[in-house]
Amino acid sequence: MSALTLADARRVIEAGENRATEIGQPQNVAVVDTGGNLVAHVRMDGAWIGSVDISINKAWTARAFNISTKELADNAQPSDQFYGIHASNSGRVMIFAGGIPLTRDDEVIGAVGVSGGSGDQDQTVAEAAAGAL
Amino acid sequence: MSALTLADARRVIEAGENRATEIGQPQNVAVVDTGGNLVAHVRMDGAWIGSVDISINKAWTARAFNISTKELADNAQPSDQFYGIHASNSGRVMIFAGGIPLTRDDEVIGAVGVSGGSGDQDQTVAEAAAGAL
Amino acid sequence: MSALTLADARRVIEAGENRATEIGQPQNVAVVDTGGNLVAHVRMDGAWIGSVDISINKAWTARAFNISTKELADNAQPSDQFYGIHASNSGRVMIFAGGIPLTRDDEVIGAVGVSGGSGDQDQTVAEAAAGAL
Amino acid sequence: MSALTLADARRVIEAGENRATEIGQPQNVAVVDTGGNLVAHVRMDGAWIGSVDISINKAWTARAFNISTKELADNAQPSDQFYGIHASNSGRVMIFAGGIPLTRDDEVIGAVGVSGGSGDQDQTVAEAAAGAL
Repeated sequence: MSALTLADARRVIEAGENRATEIGQPQNVAVVDTGGNLVAHVRMDGAWIGSVDISINKAWTARAFNISTKELADNAQPSDQFYGIHASNSGRVMIFAGGIPLTRDDEVIGAVGVSGGSGDQDQTVAEAAAGAL
Repeated sequence: MSALTLADARRVIEAGENRATEIGQPQNVAVVDTGGNLVAHVRMDGAWIGSVDISINKAWTARAFNISTKELADNAQPSDQFYGIHASNSGRVMIFAGGIPLTRDDEVIGAVGVSGGSGDQDQTVAEAAAGAL
Repeated sequence: MSALTLADARRVIEAGENRATEIGQPQNVAVVDTGGNLVAHVRMDGAWIGSVDISINKAWTARAFNISTKELADNAQPSDQFYGIHASNSGRVMIFAGGIPLTRDDEVIGAVGVSGGSGDQDQTVAEAAAGAL
Repeated sequence: MSALTLADARRVIEAGENRATEIGQPQNVAVVDTGGNLVAHVRMDGAWIGSVDISINKAWTARAFNISTKELADNAQPSDQFYGIHASNSGRVMIFAGGIPLTRDDEVIGAVGVSGGSGDQDQTVAEAAAGAL
């Protein structure tokens, strides 16, 4: 497995920024590596300050469980099998769309997290970002 | 964009206090600036001590996402697009009524947060406060 | 014992602000009540944002131990009897000058905390503030 | 006062990376805006994961008190006027070299924080970074 590099992270972030610009919604975009540790983060001009933490933790969550936060959300609602997981890990688990694992040669080597718009906007930006790895 | 001053914050708080007195419900009222940092806070005599933190964090939330906490609440219920956001940002995100962005010349320059009564009471006090900027 | 009111807190803060203006150093000034809970806080224009937390916690500390934070500092240095106390109470204990108990009829009914300048500046502002109760 | 932009942050970070490469020490470099909120962060390949948090909080500290963390360190040693400040602000205050305020037109508009090497290495990288604003 080749490790995710800063150059990888920048390519992922740039693709996310481009998609965010296309849809007219400034975003926070963060990338973590295989250990879940932050590699790079950007907050586009005008993006929400409350989304700094959320973008980083969406990325962390997607790597921590090797699942998109959108899919995790489906299992984390009241009465679902993982309901309450958002209280674990000192509040780092994000259970709404925008976090996606980054995969190379069928191995998860990190994740991207996007926050700054609606759930649909965050998801489309995260998909564009993840696609650039 | 002109920064929110302490004089601005005091005018906002005074308007909130006046409305709180009208409805007979002592309140905590807090104002944050464009960076989400506290500018001023008051706890009216008899207001809940548990609402100190809530008022400050409602203000922070309203600025962090440029949205009233009442509107954010509509998107943060189970199965909604932002469900779980209350676990982010180390527990600072408040998802019930009483926080409102403060706007000047179409720019959000801060926010007010009110806590101490029912949701309706907090909201009417926050609206009166925000209207005084 | 008569409780510390918001009107008391405002008189204390105003005296602190006046002294801060005299010495030309914008400050954060906070007042807590007998329970150590925040009654009011102001950040003067231009005062440090890192001092919001410190002013509130200097006030809390001065009430929590009924001692000025300047005196507590003398006992909290390495090798002194209370060394390590700053790690207690989830990091709320401030061990440098600027926090002073507020006393009425020989009872401590709250405290004031000042942060935003040098230790000497914080102390003189806190003394002026406390003298106004 | 013109706000610090993402383009500004990237220029600052690039200068820091160049200096880090010159001295052969991979680093974390973070930039915050006037409100102390993160604008951008990078961890160079091979840099310490424990320095992600430190770089971000050095930047925060330098803006929170408008002082370099190297200078703050001189006042935060045992028996000095700010000893104990590292316990404030929920552990965000960093009191060793590597954080420097970013100034435009004599106004502090943000700060840069560097972590990943010795104190001298962090400082020289932070100085190169700050010089690029």
